[in-house]
Amino acid sequence: MAELKNRQWLLASRPQGLIKESDFRLNETALPALKDGEVLVRNLAFSFDPTQRGWMSIDTYIPAIPIGNVMRAGAAGQVVESKNPGFGKGDLVFGLLGWEDYTITDGHGMFGMQKLPASTDPLMALSLLGTTGLTAYFGVLDVGQPKAGDTFVVSGAAGATGSVAGMIAKLKGCRVIGIAGGTEKCDWLVKEAGFDAAIDYKREKVGKALSEHCKKGINIYFDNVGGEILDDVLARIAFGARIVLCGAISQYNEMGVSMRGPKNYMNLVLRGARMEGFLVFQFASKNAQAIADLTKWHAEGKIINKIDLAHGLENCPKTIIRLFTGANFGKQLLKVADPQ
Amino acid sequence: MAELKNRQWLLASRPQGLIKESDFRLNETALPALKDGEVLVRNLAFSFDPTQRGWMSIDTYIPAIPIGNVMRAGAAGQVVESKNPGFGKGDLVFGLLGWEDYTITDGHGMFGMQKLPASTDPLMALSLLGTTGLTAYFGVLDVGQPKAGDTFVVSGAAGATGSVAGMIAKLKGCRVIGIAGGTEKCDWLVKEAGFDAAIDYKREKVGKALSEHCKKGINIYFDNVGGEILDDVLARIAFGARIVLCGAISQYNEMGVSMRGPKNYMNLVLRGARMEGFLVFQFASKNAQAIADLTKWHAEGKIINKIDLAHGLENCPKTIIRLFTGANFGKQLLKVADPQ
Repeated sequence: MAELKNRQWLLASRPQGLIKESDFRLNETALPALKDGEVLVRNLAFSFDPTQRGWMSIDTYIPAIPIGNVMRAGAAGQVVESKNPGFGKGDLVFGLLGWEDYTITDGHGMFGMQKLPASTDPLMALSLLGTTGLTAYFGVLDVGQPKAGDTFVVSGAAGATGSVAGMIAKLKGCRVIGIAGGTEKCDWLVKEAGFDAAIDYKREKVGKALSEHCKKGINIYFDNVGGEILDDVLARIAFGARIVLCGAISQYNEMGVSMRGPKNYMNLVLRGARMEGFLVFQFASKNAQAIADLTKWHAEGKIINKIDLAHGLENCPKTIIRLFTGANFGKQLLKVADPQ
Repeated sequence: MAELKNRQWLLASRPQGLIKESDFRLNETALPALKDGEVLVRNLAFSFDPTQRGWMSIDTYIPAIPIGNVMRAGAAGQVVESKNPGFGKGDLVFGLLGWEDYTITDGHGMFGMQKLPASTDPLMALSLLGTTGLTAYFGVLDVGQPKAGDTFVVSGAAGATGSVAGMIAKLKGCRVIGIAGGTEKCDWLVKEAGFDAAIDYKREKVGKALSEHCKKGINIYFDNVGGEILDDVLARIAFGARIVLCGAISQYNEMGVSMRGPKNYMNLVLRGARMEGFLVFQFASKNAQAIADLTKWHAEGKIINKIDLAHGLENCPKTIIRLFTGANFGKQLLKVADPQ
């Protein structure tokens, strides 16, 4: 096995503003022999997530990726060789691995590597049943605490987490308004995803449109973008509103530079409202129930799992850039290989 | 009774920035005869509260005070004459009345006028057992949800609400750090009010001092001031932190002009934390328990009710200005008359 070649994307520089392809550098090495306790994983597919922008820049809830290291990514993979009693050849696995053909790991790493049931679709594990779907699930249900009849607004609504968040809120009896960019996405929200209305931020004034769609104010806002839209929403929250901060993609690009605070935050006082951030691993003890619910809702057709699929390790840098320019439509994944 | 003269402070203009004396105008009128259902109240004392800055400027949780109307204030008074079966001559009352010698009201008004037990000290009713003390009580206990061992930081710590908030947190087993302006206030916090430490924002760098005093991060922040200090705190919150927004006095002056948002708010996501505003009347159903607790703690010497007392109706405008320049030390009240 030691003769396998491994292509790797290394972090070449910390991004300033938008991520550029030159922030990464392609490297090719020969894989070393496995040591006791190690596992050799063939990466099958990568997840692309806003939080990766943070990892590239600064220590957050986990340390920043050191310059020169392999770019960290949520990944599904398959065990090729194992000297670790916890994993066997052929096992499908899931964890924080990296942009490379093969990853050698002791199985611990950050948050550990988990085995997936043998029949698992790697793409499903990285989208609806992975961090993306779980973020929507816990963000809406545990943080947002929807009640039937609530007006629920979500930004980044055609994105992976946003669309699932809106569909879960709909399932709980909320009136759901999505904010997204472009006619295609807005049409999809209303016609396919079952949203009550969609606001196209590229063509409409978001504040004015929110006033029209939310005459009794906004009860829950699931915020994927931050920036001016957060202020537009804060200006229109109902008494007792909950703002679920899911990671503001418009702000990730500014990390460590100049963050813009929501100037209307004092409405939280005037409307007795709260703004709450969360990380999906806070709720890890409830993952099994969440995965069971999401699987059931998906099977019943109540939740659509829309995937935007790229192909080929060589396209990783181009693909992460799509995420921050809003080019992706649905969960951005990249497939490297099929399971054997 | 119709020959009584009534001096009134009317709202002359909406303040720009800090309140000025010229934002008010003194008026003198003869009191009209009482109509059926009305009550004539001799105002005994007024409460001075940051929220009044909002009432002067814009519609908030209640409508703005119309220009030319009597300046609205929390007040304690005594019934002089009543044509309302709910109130009798001599009754002590409490409610949103106005800066004038006498107020004629139907007893409903905003939030209604409440009778006080006969032996009540009007100054106590406007401070520890009024909105100020209740705000601290519900803000700390219901919104902040302190646990023994938590690090609790409060700004405006020598102020009426801030000092009581800190003392309640201390009583619940928190380590309490107060932020206040000036040596006298900081000394009082540590030597009299039982705080574990005080930070003098006029002499120290607040961020640096917070880092020294809160090595494991801040679990609860009771925010009375907003502005840069809120960002200094957000940079240092612990995982799962609660930020209690109690009305940011540094922001009230800017209302309707340019509000500054907390640029470090994204730490709410990274630390799974929340920022929550509230209005004291949300918890009105629990007022009786709160008043009983506060009375008991005060009697046991666990809570000091520090009052900064002005005198004379003519000094109302000067006195409200003290509140926003930080000149007051303790709850700012103004006494107009003694009960008969």
